[in-house]
Amino acid sequence: MKIRFVCSCLVTLFALFVTSGRAQETPTEREAAREMLKKMAELEKSLDAPALVARLTAANPAREQVVARAKELMDKELLALSDDITRHPEIGFVEHRSIKLLMDYLKQHDFEVKAGVGGLETAFVARYKRNNGAPNLGVILEYDALRGTTRAFHGDQHSAQGPVGIAAAVAIAEYLTRTNSPGSVVVFGCPGEEMMPPNAKTVMFEAGVFNGMDVIVRSHSSGATSRPAPGFGTCCMNIDGVKYIFSGAPAHQLQAWNGRNALEAVIHLFVNIDSVRSNIRPEARIQGVITEGGAAPNVVPDRAVADFYIRYPDEVYLRQVRKFVDDAARAAALATQTKVKIEHYGTARDGISVSTLAEVGFAYMKMYGATKIVAEPGRPQGFEETGSVSSAIPGLGFSAHSSNAANHTYEMEADALGEVGHHGFLVDAQAMTALLFDVATHPDYRAAIKREFDTIKTLFGEYQEALKRAYTVPKVSEP
Amino acid sequence: MKIRFVCSCLVTLFALFVTSGRAQETPTEREAAREMLKKMAELEKSLDAPALVARLTAANPAREQVVARAKELMDKELLALSDDITRHPEIGFVEHRSIKLLMDYLKQHDFEVKAGVGGLETAFVARYKRNNGAPNLGVILEYDALRGTTRAFHGDQHSAQGPVGIAAAVAIAEYLTRTNSPGSVVVFGCPGEEMMPPNAKTVMFEAGVFNGMDVIVRSHSSGATSRPAPGFGTCCMNIDGVKYIFSGAPAHQLQAWNGRNALEAVIHLFVNIDSVRSNIRPEARIQGVITEGGAAPNVVPDRAVADFYIRYPDEVYLRQVRKFVDDAARAAALATQTKVKIEHYGTARDGISVSTLAEVGFAYMKMYGATKIVAEPGRPQGFEETGSVSSAIPGLGFSAHSSNAANHTYEMEADALGEVGHHGFLVDAQAMTALLFDVATHPDYRAAIKREFDTIKTLFGEYQEALKRAYTVPKVSEP
Amino acid sequence: MKIRFVCSCLVTLFALFVTSGRAQETPTEREAAREMLKKMAELEKSLDAPALVARLTAANPAREQVVARAKELMDKELLALSDDITRHPEIGFVEHRSIKLLMDYLKQHDFEVKAGVGGLETAFVARYKRNNGAPNLGVILEYDALRGTTRAFHGDQHSAQGPVGIAAAVAIAEYLTRTNSPGSVVVFGCPGEEMMPPNAKTVMFEAGVFNGMDVIVRSHSSGATSRPAPGFGTCCMNIDGVKYIFSGAPAHQLQAWNGRNALEAVIHLFVNIDSVRSNIRPEARIQGVITEGGAAPNVVPDRAVADFYIRYPDEVYLRQVRKFVDDAARAAALATQTKVKIEHYGTARDGISVSTLAEVGFAYMKMYGATKIVAEPGRPQGFEETGSVSSAIPGLGFSAHSSNAANHTYEMEADALGEVGHHGFLVDAQAMTALLFDVATHPDYRAAIKREFDTIKTLFGEYQEALKRAYTVPKVSEP
Amino acid sequence: MKIRFVCSCLVTLFALFVTSGRAQETPTEREAAREMLKKMAELEKSLDAPALVARLTAANPAREQVVARAKELMDKELLALSDDITRHPEIGFVEHRSIKLLMDYLKQHDFEVKAGVGGLETAFVARYKRNNGAPNLGVILEYDALRGTTRAFHGDQHSAQGPVGIAAAVAIAEYLTRTNSPGSVVVFGCPGEEMMPPNAKTVMFEAGVFNGMDVIVRSHSSGATSRPAPGFGTCCMNIDGVKYIFSGAPAHQLQAWNGRNALEAVIHLFVNIDSVRSNIRPEARIQGVITEGGAAPNVVPDRAVADFYIRYPDEVYLRQVRKFVDDAARAAALATQTKVKIEHYGTARDGISVSTLAEVGFAYMKMYGATKIVAEPGRPQGFEETGSVSSAIPGLGFSAHSSNAANHTYEMEADALGEVGHHGFLVDAQAMTALLFDVATHPDYRAAIKREFDTIKTLFGEYQEALKRAYTVPKVSEP
Repeated sequence: MKIRFVCSCLVTLFALFVTSGRAQETPTEREAAREMLKKMAELEKSLDAPALVARLTAANPAREQVVARAKELMDKELLALSDDITRHPEIGFVEHRSIKLLMDYLKQHDFEVKAGVGGLETAFVARYKRNNGAPNLGVILEYDALRGTTRAFHGDQHSAQGPVGIAAAVAIAEYLTRTNSPGSVVVFGCPGEEMMPPNAKTVMFEAGVFNGMDVIVRSHSSGATSRPAPGFGTCCMNIDGVKYIFSGAPAHQLQAWNGRNALEAVIHLFVNIDSVRSNIRPEARIQGVITEGGAAPNVVPDRAVADFYIRYPDEVYLRQVRKFVDDAARAAALATQTKVKIEHYGTARDGISVSTLAEVGFAYMKMYGATKIVAEPGRPQGFEETGSVSSAIPGLGFSAHSSNAANHTYEMEADALGEVGHHGFLVDAQAMTALLFDVATHPDYRAAIKREFDTIKTLFGEYQEALKRAYTVPKVSEP
Repeated sequence: MKIRFVCSCLVTLFALFVTSGRAQETPTEREAAREMLKKMAELEKSLDAPALVARLTAANPAREQVVARAKELMDKELLALSDDITRHPEIGFVEHRSIKLLMDYLKQHDFEVKAGVGGLETAFVARYKRNNGAPNLGVILEYDALRGTTRAFHGDQHSAQGPVGIAAAVAIAEYLTRTNSPGSVVVFGCPGEEMMPPNAKTVMFEAGVFNGMDVIVRSHSSGATSRPAPGFGTCCMNIDGVKYIFSGAPAHQLQAWNGRNALEAVIHLFVNIDSVRSNIRPEARIQGVITEGGAAPNVVPDRAVADFYIRYPDEVYLRQVRKFVDDAARAAALATQTKVKIEHYGTARDGISVSTLAEVGFAYMKMYGATKIVAEPGRPQGFEETGSVSSAIPGLGFSAHSSNAANHTYEMEADALGEVGHHGFLVDAQAMTALLFDVATHPDYRAAIKREFDTIKTLFGEYQEALKRAYTVPKVSEP
Repeated sequence: MKIRFVCSCLVTLFALFVTSGRAQETPTEREAAREMLKKMAELEKSLDAPALVARLTAANPAREQVVARAKELMDKELLALSDDITRHPEIGFVEHRSIKLLMDYLKQHDFEVKAGVGGLETAFVARYKRNNGAPNLGVILEYDALRGTTRAFHGDQHSAQGPVGIAAAVAIAEYLTRTNSPGSVVVFGCPGEEMMPPNAKTVMFEAGVFNGMDVIVRSHSSGATSRPAPGFGTCCMNIDGVKYIFSGAPAHQLQAWNGRNALEAVIHLFVNIDSVRSNIRPEARIQGVITEGGAAPNVVPDRAVADFYIRYPDEVYLRQVRKFVDDAARAAALATQTKVKIEHYGTARDGISVSTLAEVGFAYMKMYGATKIVAEPGRPQGFEETGSVSSAIPGLGFSAHSSNAANHTYEMEADALGEVGHHGFLVDAQAMTALLFDVATHPDYRAAIKREFDTIKTLFGEYQEALKRAYTVPKVSEP
Repeated sequence: MKIRFVCSCLVTLFALFVTSGRAQETPTEREAAREMLKKMAELEKSLDAPALVARLTAANPAREQVVARAKELMDKELLALSDDITRHPEIGFVEHRSIKLLMDYLKQHDFEVKAGVGGLETAFVARYKRNNGAPNLGVILEYDALRGTTRAFHGDQHSAQGPVGIAAAVAIAEYLTRTNSPGSVVVFGCPGEEMMPPNAKTVMFEAGVFNGMDVIVRSHSSGATSRPAPGFGTCCMNIDGVKYIFSGAPAHQLQAWNGRNALEAVIHLFVNIDSVRSNIRPEARIQGVITEGGAAPNVVPDRAVADFYIRYPDEVYLRQVRKFVDDAARAAALATQTKVKIEHYGTARDGISVSTLAEVGFAYMKMYGATKIVAEPGRPQGFEETGSVSSAIPGLGFSAHSSNAANHTYEMEADALGEVGHHGFLVDAQAMTALLFDVATHPDYRAAIKREFDTIKTLFGEYQEALKRAYTVPKVSEP
């Protein structure tokens, strides 16, 4: 990851190559999770994912026909569409050209499209017109580019997500209609993943946009072909993105006592945080920048702003960490007689991953020619980065090897137009189609996914309760 | 003043040689006081102190007889008593030997003595047994020594205040009885002037100990013979003495997140204060020390204490300054999740000085041989340092030249035993006696004192109201 | 002064209405200046400015003819030119349109013009082609607009300075030629007064641009008609403008130990300064803003920048204050293992004012109808704000009442186009012409100006030596 | 461990119950140690400690006779001596009574005793008078009590170390003489383990006091019977104990600019450290207290002192951490224009433990009835806490279960006088005697110990070199 481009994205899903399969990073977490991990091991044993994989991925001409249709769409039109979007990058929340292309294509393939969902101009939902009850299959698309120092660019290959997801959605929708099978296909256009606030998928989730989905799939560029272990977790800690906005009173430097200094307040926000770092568990990561630090040296600054990412491996202790930071801001305002507004603008939380989806999807990626295979499962984590969707609805993120460069680089953008990218996108589209085919056609498979997901969700809840008991707050005596 | 001995005294009355006669130190104060100072000038003109001085200090055999009695007591016994106390220094609130000597002497001279007044073990009140109604003449005594690095010592000559005041009190009491004149004499033994908390005279004042006095006198060592101008003010700013006591939670250094660090809190009290220094008027003086800063480096400190003197030329803006410091402490506790107790332990406020007493007393000091005369009146200030007594009851502090050394030095202690000290004490005792004689015997003089004092007190109130209007608090807009 | 527009100007000459005539603001300064002020009083007595004024301003048809020519130029063309520039504001260092108009006008009136002097694109020097030796009369012009929140604007009326100065310059130059008198006229176009760095006039001064001038004049907008007292001083303290640029090492937030945080360094620059505020004399004013405070919260900031104005009433103690601030920056870099670059970008120092120019100029302003007259002279200060020119060459800044609004407001801009502005500019142009006429035609007047200036300059040097002796640095013992 | 008593001990050996057997605590350390740990595993395999234990601890009447003699001494006199010392606690460096008792006993048993070694009054060396060349067997004794809030107390049972070690030393010395075997016995009296500075054993080590020893043994109170794994490490991180002493210049609060504030400096030492906590690896532990924080609030503090423990799991990165803290102090002095003295007063470093001693000693403890056996070896660590002795000379610390209370409690002191303590001390004395017997009588055993120790020492060196390569310092670019 070239940090110069990481300007505002709260989380960079898939970006940090994670070798450890453990979601619990601290002794306290491991202790709290002990019982749940035991039960999860029993669950996984009873689900027997290897046997499931063997059964589902066995030769199946019907499946292969649907997959071939997805490949045909990619080859004929959608890889070209991916290249087009790659060459016309638009940053988050203004992806007007990109969504027009995607929505037009979906309309041409009998989807009914509604833009502006969740109050976001460039978010959309596309429902296949001949949808026919459950199971409900969801496909998430993204399309925003990164902000570079000189131009927007598709250094994270979001440009391909639309075409990949649409290929699978159209192919499986056509299949359901053709075979008169029950089932519905819904495509979710999700803007501005790199641009929050707002956190688009969470906004959409809270607006009920994803309601009713049985399974959701998504693709994303990757430097290797991998899949997560089952469980709950996140790539890079639970995160709160928060802005602290201070206001004071202006005055000329020569009569500064007629003013109240908002810059001193923001400085003391940092100093206050530093003062308690040694009293916060060492796995926390709190870092901020000053985005507004006063206008002119001869005027007492009456406005100053800081922007922070506050991270902890679990969300339970994260709340304690967050309280420290919010208190630091309140204390800074109190000491400087300024006022502070605390603006929570972004959240990343643990998501849930299930082996019933991950192992089957991984097997298909290999079957359709994925390269650079990582043999061991990665750590558990949701299929999208907010945790809001992926802790509520089972799903899988496909990440076939599509670039030899790091995420968020111009090189990864170039790869989106080349052999390695096109090959990876084709793999993603085919594997995604195959998986959706299995979900659509095997009620017992859907039941297994649901059982795994629901059990892990329950265990996740128990884990959080255990953490709440583990993380006591020290008792301070009266002075 | 040799600072090494200034360990705990909140104010060092008479200690800083003040050349300016203005009580208002800042442009804002001078602007606020403009009208009151005009009215005060008119008052003083109408009182015509020079004429009053001429009239009262004219030859008067009756007065001289009383003054001679005071001198006799000094020469025969009380200078020796002063030397005795000088040679047996006792620090504040444990002046048991000293007050026994003083109280015994008073009892022997027909005073009824009550120790432990105001809840202070070494405070006492001595009332002449043949007291006969108004006017009520009060005499304040002090007797505590300073804490030196190696021993207690009378570097501020409080050892002589008892003998001086007693000489005057006994002489005038005997006179009233002998002449069957109306009037009462009360001696107030005030401990621990250098040792607060508590601020003994304020405690006694609030307990009503000084109630009913018409005039109060007191003496104090001095490097020169001077008197204050009439008005309201203080030698060295209005002062709040405050302790900030923080408590946290202990923990081993290796698991510091199980603790809350009270030392970090006290550190951030200082840092918070520093952060607003440029937004406080530059005449403020805020300084503190850390008296408890943690016990062992491998344990999170769960208790820490700081001690501050907070000063401003007037008490109105001082309240704003004080709020900044208290807020700094509250903010430090908030940011570190510790608790703070704010312990206000000492106060010095503007007192009132009147020319009707100051000019007459000054004339008598000169008449009885005072040396090192400062021709111009000093700045207005109360006759005792708390301002509580001296802003409520008219009075005068006598300060004949009694040492060639600075206050709070071993040299000043030595002078208390030598020629320069003995001479000064004699002058003080005689001038004090003469002044009390005039107050006791001239109803019109008492009326003039009262008129001056009451008028200045009213103007002082108006000044404070004007300051309240001048010192607005900057308006901070919502962020 | 509406502070919202005071974005970058280091000093705002004439902007603060100064009532006190004393240049020495602190007791230490007044003590150090005691002897020099005595000698200055003797000097002024011997110069007898009132007599000089009476003699020079007596009726003089030759002078009136020259003054009438200046008025004619104003009425016919130059007030319109002033309006034109007012309506086309250009901010500092890009005043291309403005200087083209001014230079063209000067060329049309026989001035030889050279742009780009001192390495500054929009600085120029215009010399009258028929210049004829000494005396050398200089005229300073400015023309930059202020940066408003929505547009550039002439809220300080610099737009009129060019026309006013040109009217006087042309009128007097024509007179010298016509009468075949000795003397030269040089016009100095000085850009970006509100925009430093760089400080244009100091750059030009150090490049020798002003060399050889006997007297320099200049005009400036004003809310009242005033003149300075003779002496040395400045309107708003001696000032250093300094940028502190820190560099660290970037790293992802998750492995912050691989980075070094430049934002923490800049924060601790502020915190370090605050830590010594109580050990710096209270007349100092140190204030800064953070102009770069990090890019993204998930990356350790590797660059951060602060911008400070550091002020003290005299430049001798200012050096001690400056050392505190520079040390604060070095200490911040040391503690954070970052690097710092200290960039001194602006300077304002005491200038010299002389009664021989100020009183005559003031008399002419009144003679030509100036309104809102301030009877008492203001505090001594240079005729331009850097102190570099005005402490080396005698001169006068004309400031007839030209607006009823505060400096740096849209209202003052509007006044430049209205009655009050036009009237004030006419007064300035006429008074400036009359003063230059007197300088050009009275050798004894020039001698008096030179004697006054040289003597004050010598006394200024003696004052600074006295200050150096007064400001000792406390001795710190070895720990 | 009840932290209220942990007043000054730098390390509390044996005090934290350590469950993990890994000496490398961080991923970086584990990566750096990878190769060395492999070689160490091979070494241990080749040494085959279990076989060695079986061979040595087999029935042996000669050994049992010597062990019985040690038990006899304990039963007859030395347990009583232990009780006596327990009942007369003396804190570090004033253990005059205690060492007199111990030295007298040794003299009575033919030891030649020299007190005051290494410049420490209460340190001593006792050499058996009939010592006879190699092997050289050393026994370390300690005897200092803890400082409680109301009295000194033997809450760490150092009172028993002298009697235990003397029992073994006398028994084995008598045996060597009786059997005319080669070998020498030396007892080292080491004061003030809980009281540093100075760190007595390191001072003695650097003075060459321990030179020539082949093996050193020591006992210590324990809540369980355990032994370390072989390797290099420490119980509680490598530690630097450092004092930072600041001096400034005093001044009265009213003219604070005449002073330089040493308390502000010490405050900013803390603040500076806090500012880089996020740029230091999270396993570091830096904590301090303010032991001198100014004398009086009305005087600028001219002296202030802080005391820090600085810890990191390895000493290589500890040097980087230490540099941060030292720089924080230097920066604080620079910013406040004060001076700082950095006083390094204590050190704890990794020591070496060998299985050839640990496993044999552990087997003997069990054989002689030790209770509360911890089956798994603890993490590798030296037999004494400084690391200076234990990384240079092979040895073993005996820690049979001797109390049911935590270290540093009054309860552990009580246990020293009771059944559990006496039993544990007897076990320690017998096991120590048996081990020394084996070392004295089996040359091949000594060779194995030496081979193990020397190899681990070499690997320790390689590990440190690997760490040096791993811990790069971030490169900071020029601003």
